[in-house]
Amino acid sequence: MPALNLSGVFAPVLTPVDADLNIDLKLYVEFCRWLLDTGCHGLVLFGTNSEATSFSVAERKAALDAVLGAGIPAEKLVVGNGTPAISDGVELARHALAAGCHKVMTLPPFYYPKMSDEGLFRSFAYIIDRVGDPALQMYFYHIPQVSGVGLSADLLDRLATEFPGAAAGVKDSTGDAGNLARFHQIAAAHPGFSVFCGTESLLLANLRGGGAGCISGMANVIPDQIRALYESWQAVGADDHQVRLNWLRNAALGTGFNVIAAAKSLTADRTGAAGWTRVRPPLVDLTPAQQETLRTAVRAAEPVLA
Amino acid sequence: MPALNLSGVFAPVLTPVDADLNIDLKLYVEFCRWLLDTGCHGLVLFGTNSEATSFSVAERKAALDAVLGAGIPAEKLVVGNGTPAISDGVELARHALAAGCHKVMTLPPFYYPKMSDEGLFRSFAYIIDRVGDPALQMYFYHIPQVSGVGLSADLLDRLATEFPGAAAGVKDSTGDAGNLARFHQIAAAHPGFSVFCGTESLLLANLRGGGAGCISGMANVIPDQIRALYESWQAVGADDHQVRLNWLRNAALGTGFNVIAAAKSLTADRTGAAGWTRVRPPLVDLTPAQQETLRTAVRAAEPVLA
Repeated sequence: MPALNLSGVFAPVLTPVDADLNIDLKLYVEFCRWLLDTGCHGLVLFGTNSEATSFSVAERKAALDAVLGAGIPAEKLVVGNGTPAISDGVELARHALAAGCHKVMTLPPFYYPKMSDEGLFRSFAYIIDRVGDPALQMYFYHIPQVSGVGLSADLLDRLATEFPGAAAGVKDSTGDAGNLARFHQIAAAHPGFSVFCGTESLLLANLRGGGAGCISGMANVIPDQIRALYESWQAVGADDHQVRLNWLRNAALGTGFNVIAAAKSLTADRTGAAGWTRVRPPLVDLTPAQQETLRTAVRAAEPVLA
Repeated sequence: MPALNLSGVFAPVLTPVDADLNIDLKLYVEFCRWLLDTGCHGLVLFGTNSEATSFSVAERKAALDAVLGAGIPAEKLVVGNGTPAISDGVELARHALAAGCHKVMTLPPFYYPKMSDEGLFRSFAYIIDRVGDPALQMYFYHIPQVSGVGLSADLLDRLATEFPGAAAGVKDSTGDAGNLARFHQIAAAHPGFSVFCGTESLLLANLRGGGAGCISGMANVIPDQIRALYESWQAVGADDHQVRLNWLRNAALGTGFNVIAAAKSLTADRTGAAGWTRVRPPLVDLTPAQQETLRTAVRAAEPVLA
């Protein structure tokens, strides 16, 4: 069986913004470095936790250029090119490839709900065809509870069959172990096809099923802890480790705050850079009182990780 | 009470594409002219029926430039600037204003579901503030069954209060007469605020409640019939006219086909330009058999319009 195109622990990198709500490229590059130094195998620039769709194509291209310009290697990066317009998806993928990044993560067009498998197939095929570069590796992004548009196992199977190599894998952000198992069947039928889970709470289940790893928002906060579980997944005690990781996740989620604003707030706490708390509308920053509630909840859960 | 900023019958203009799925600007301009010659008071470029979100910012700007370059007056146009990224919303609005178009129609950012009124307020406020042009008139676009993000009456009231003049009106595409009536209350509290319905089946109800008119996909197909109802809404027989219009709508919808692909198919029939049937993915063109089913259904309903 060929090696997976991609495996390990990836952070969908949070995107810091300045007081004018433009991307703070200095803070962004520093954060990318910290993530790689602290446990991430690689980075997904412009996933959901990155507020990807809140930034224009030009802003997303400039951010990638800044990361590469700072010396972060292209092979550590997956570039999110999900947009409602497939022409923008082509432009972002071409820009990534021209910069040496071969891996993109692609949402289906997400304005219209209930699109057919045929329509979604044509959307992905359009991007792959127009990009026209055999180096392209596309990871399909399944997060129907946010995007409103899911990817069926049949659709993924058709993509993997018709675009071997280019159809490189899937990220399953449903948090549904049953769905993840269906995607493992696709990977089994198409060797090399990588299945990522979108929550570290399914990391063990994913690796045991033949999956490749996780791309989890919490990897922005505790990359070291998630990496440690990845490294020891076949060791005695891995299940206990998974349970301890889940405690922290549940503590953070238990506050009910928006997960992106919450992860940014925790990053502000860790770095001391207060500007990290900012989000771009339609998201709303946590208030100081909410930040304190979050801090308290996380502190109470942290000892279990020690 | 001041005059409404905008009133009448508007088509959310269908966007023809060539065999490469790029906008067919020649066919587009011809169609815009036909709509204005055949009954529309004005045109909404890049609404939902236009497949707005399926085209990039650059493609949308080029299409507006082509329409204006062909001599269609800027004052007849409303420019859809709805995008998930508020920075793109600013860019599209600035481009429209620079070209002499003061009226834009704006979706809320539509990637994340369940955004708060506060987050949506900040999104619209960001665009209005950054555009920074007192000539801007923004029509807020409420189509939660597609976008996944609705606009509450409280939010619209706050926008109309904080941005008098710039907050120029709303398009309600829910097809829900009760919701339309709630929006009429906002118009009553904020003189000059225009309420459009997104279906001509509520045109009479909207005008009787103080609304401004309709922006309806069917105006791409039967602008003359809808205009005739608008002109005679206070006449004896207006209710009968509305019922006859609804027959055609229901016949077309009764096929169950995607409404945009269906409207394009009927436009191909009317113009003889077969390329009109094309849609951009994730939508899917009607098959020849589906086109024939649609034709038959519409033909059966048309005599009631005579």
